[in-house]
Amino acid sequence: MAAVAGLQAKGPGWLLRGPWAPLAAGFCSRRPAGAEPPGPEPRPTCARQRDGIRNIVLSNPEKRNALSLAMLKSLQSDILHDAESKDLKVIVISAEGPVFSSGHDLKELTDKQGHDYHVEVFQTCSEVMMQIQNHPVPVIAMVNGLATAAGCQLVASCDIAVASDKSSFATPGVNIGLFCSTPGVALGRTVPRKVALKMLFTGEPISAQEALSHGLLSKVVPEEQLEEETMRIAKKIASLSRPVMSLGKATFYKQLPQDLQTAYCLTSQTMVDSLAQQDGQEGIKAFIQKRKPIWSH
Amino acid sequence: MAAVAGLQAKGPGWLLRGPWAPLAAGFCSRRPAGAEPPGPEPRPTCARQRDGIRNIVLSNPEKRNALSLAMLKSLQSDILHDAESKDLKVIVISAEGPVFSSGHDLKELTDKQGHDYHVEVFQTCSEVMMQIQNHPVPVIAMVNGLATAAGCQLVASCDIAVASDKSSFATPGVNIGLFCSTPGVALGRTVPRKVALKMLFTGEPISAQEALSHGLLSKVVPEEQLEEETMRIAKKIASLSRPVMSLGKATFYKQLPQDLQTAYCLTSQTMVDSLAQQDGQEGIKAFIQKRKPIWSH
Amino acid sequence: MAAVAGLQAKGPGWLLRGPWAPLAAGFCSRRPAGAEPPGPEPRPTCARQRDGIRNIVLSNPEKRNALSLAMLKSLQSDILHDAESKDLKVIVISAEGPVFSSGHDLKELTDKQGHDYHVEVFQTCSEVMMQIQNHPVPVIAMVNGLATAAGCQLVASCDIAVASDKSSFATPGVNIGLFCSTPGVALGRTVPRKVALKMLFTGEPISAQEALSHGLLSKVVPEEQLEEETMRIAKKIASLSRPVMSLGKATFYKQLPQDLQTAYCLTSQTMVDSLAQQDGQEGIKAFIQKRKPIWSH
Repeated sequence: MAAVAGLQAKGPGWLLRGPWAPLAAGFCSRRPAGAEPPGPEPRPTCARQRDGIRNIVLSNPEKRNALSLAMLKSLQSDILHDAESKDLKVIVISAEGPVFSSGHDLKELTDKQGHDYHVEVFQTCSEVMMQIQNHPVPVIAMVNGLATAAGCQLVASCDIAVASDKSSFATPGVNIGLFCSTPGVALGRTVPRKVALKMLFTGEPISAQEALSHGLLSKVVPEEQLEEETMRIAKKIASLSRPVMSLGKATFYKQLPQDLQTAYCLTSQTMVDSLAQQDGQEGIKAFIQKRKPIWSH
Repeated sequence: MAAVAGLQAKGPGWLLRGPWAPLAAGFCSRRPAGAEPPGPEPRPTCARQRDGIRNIVLSNPEKRNALSLAMLKSLQSDILHDAESKDLKVIVISAEGPVFSSGHDLKELTDKQGHDYHVEVFQTCSEVMMQIQNHPVPVIAMVNGLATAAGCQLVASCDIAVASDKSSFATPGVNIGLFCSTPGVALGRTVPRKVALKMLFTGEPISAQEALSHGLLSKVVPEEQLEEETMRIAKKIASLSRPVMSLGKATFYKQLPQDLQTAYCLTSQTMVDSLAQQDGQEGIKAFIQKRKPIWSH
Repeated sequence: MAAVAGLQAKGPGWLLRGPWAPLAAGFCSRRPAGAEPPGPEPRPTCARQRDGIRNIVLSNPEKRNALSLAMLKSLQSDILHDAESKDLKVIVISAEGPVFSSGHDLKELTDKQGHDYHVEVFQTCSEVMMQIQNHPVPVIAMVNGLATAAGCQLVASCDIAVASDKSSFATPGVNIGLFCSTPGVALGRTVPRKVALKMLFTGEPISAQEALSHGLLSKVVPEEQLEEETMRIAKKIASLSRPVMSLGKATFYKQLPQDLQTAYCLTSQTMVDSLAQQDGQEGIKAFIQKRKPIWSH
């Protein structure tokens, strides 16, 4: 475990990353206990990686894990860090405390900070949400509690979301005169319009079960099984071929907005190409020979 | 309460409206009891407005609230009337009698009326459905009973839909040789394809619970709670900032068909702009100061 | 019942069909018992048609109804055979044995067959899926068991899907290094993204009830009612006007990806045109006269 250098990961896209040191078994974006602080504030996320699974934890429960600019940049850093490493197979985003995330830090949105700061907040937030979708490995949200506004957007933006049955989800911006338009982008692409608009117009929460039945979540489990079930899914993904998963994820999002014929041209080509790859042939041979496949990485 | 002048609201878009008088507390499109009838027929909808909530009632239960051309124009008039008024915050569309609406009036679709009349019926109907989506305030359907064909389309076209558990929904045009193609536009954008096509190909109804689970409804309640629950939602919306809600609704529908990057550009801009508005700053300040916000309107 | 000639139906689109003989009451793609085999292998699908309903059965349970190239071509042949015949009103696709279909035949995807063969497999498969959507009559999947990979894609591609409660659905390609990208096209258009990606990334199955709640199925029934319920739906469709159904299906898929205004222009025109057709007027007259309509065909 090692302290990280800072926020150099910021750039026009997730392919541009800062000077992170390669880490064998894990890393943590928080300073180890007792270490000399390099700056005035500890980073608000904590990340560890082991056996291909990177766990990123929103770690500012006192502020309800608000997605302040610092939190967004820290999260972005942890997501983009060594994204191309073969050792990374899957990312799990969770949170400390009873609130997954309460969304933007309202203190950053007053007149005082001003227009340019507001622009940076929303640009960074949108970047993070798109970087999750564009990331080469699957990103799982593990939710145990309330996720509101941009916090709900974060859950909606992950590829998979597992939540405890006590979790709930809301986009309550209307209550403070700030309609959740950016969260509505992610929400409107995951739940039916009638559900999204009731949430956006009233600010009222939906339960984990409602969120599951409407497509915001992939699975709901009792709180005591949340970590076990999420890690089971993460381990399953980590046991598979990274290049296969990575190409599959990118292809899925690429074909989704296309017309049917274009989508089938694109994906048929991907299938044929995959069969010419090492892991494609190894997987099929292993299946026919009734043995476990050995992935290239 | 006052009788309305007629159908002058018709125009190329909802921004062009006829000479409605501004109404302080409400209005009604039906003649008051005992009043001299201005024309041969009472208007088939009834509208009242109070405390920002406009209730429009389909009021021709003898004809199962069929969406005749007169009904469509009356509904259109009531929807578009004073749409820009600051006093209007939300619209609720409901119906008298056990049938919410049975769809088009088939007697208007025979050879007798002829091609041009048919064109006017379907153009007007499509206009009304789009005007609901383009309207500056949220439109809620409150359904207590059967909604079929264009009646089902009306429910699907509202932003939010609340129904009693005895309600049901169908697109039975195939039974009379007239496939519900226009209802299919709204239905295909609210429920999964497999559900929409079973409804369209067989004409068979789905229950309120099925409609909820598939995204056609926002909420289902027992019949005796329908009005209370719908009005609770309407009052909540009416208590919020109209310009915030209006921009939020327009932005939601605008970003929905865009690619992710365009959607985030568009909505991030909206968020930053909102923060420069009076109600945006008032809401955030009120929240930080732990007091109720005072909206501009 | 008669043996079919072979696989002449292959062509650039489903409108080009081979020399099938017109069949009065039905046909079967398998050789009658005892008949001289015309080639080395019996066709892997079996088709019969009666009273407007064509039943196509995947009939290779020993190989878990794998969608080998031969199976795909046989299915394609049975789907396209006499597609324009007035006697055909609806198609039902089912399967022999406990597995609906296990997807592609992996033995056909090894190095041995090579690039060109792989291309033909995926092109043919994509063609079949699109031909189902482009077919002039509704296509129903009747599923009793496991449907995986391209088998799951086949279910997702049908217009309607009815399944027994013991059925389940998976896209397990990742397990063998071959991400289910082509199945993802159909899956991503029927279930929410969070559900599709969990299936694609983990390969884990979902139950029939989950598949129903997420939009992959139109209906779930106990196994002993599966055939009865599916045939009830098929008979209902077969009792209706074929030209009405055919135009309705084509229009539904055509409007779905359009913006709202284009979709309403297109469908309003269809409605008006339909009213000028024989079956449109007959249906409305019959309804007004409270009698059963007599369809042109």
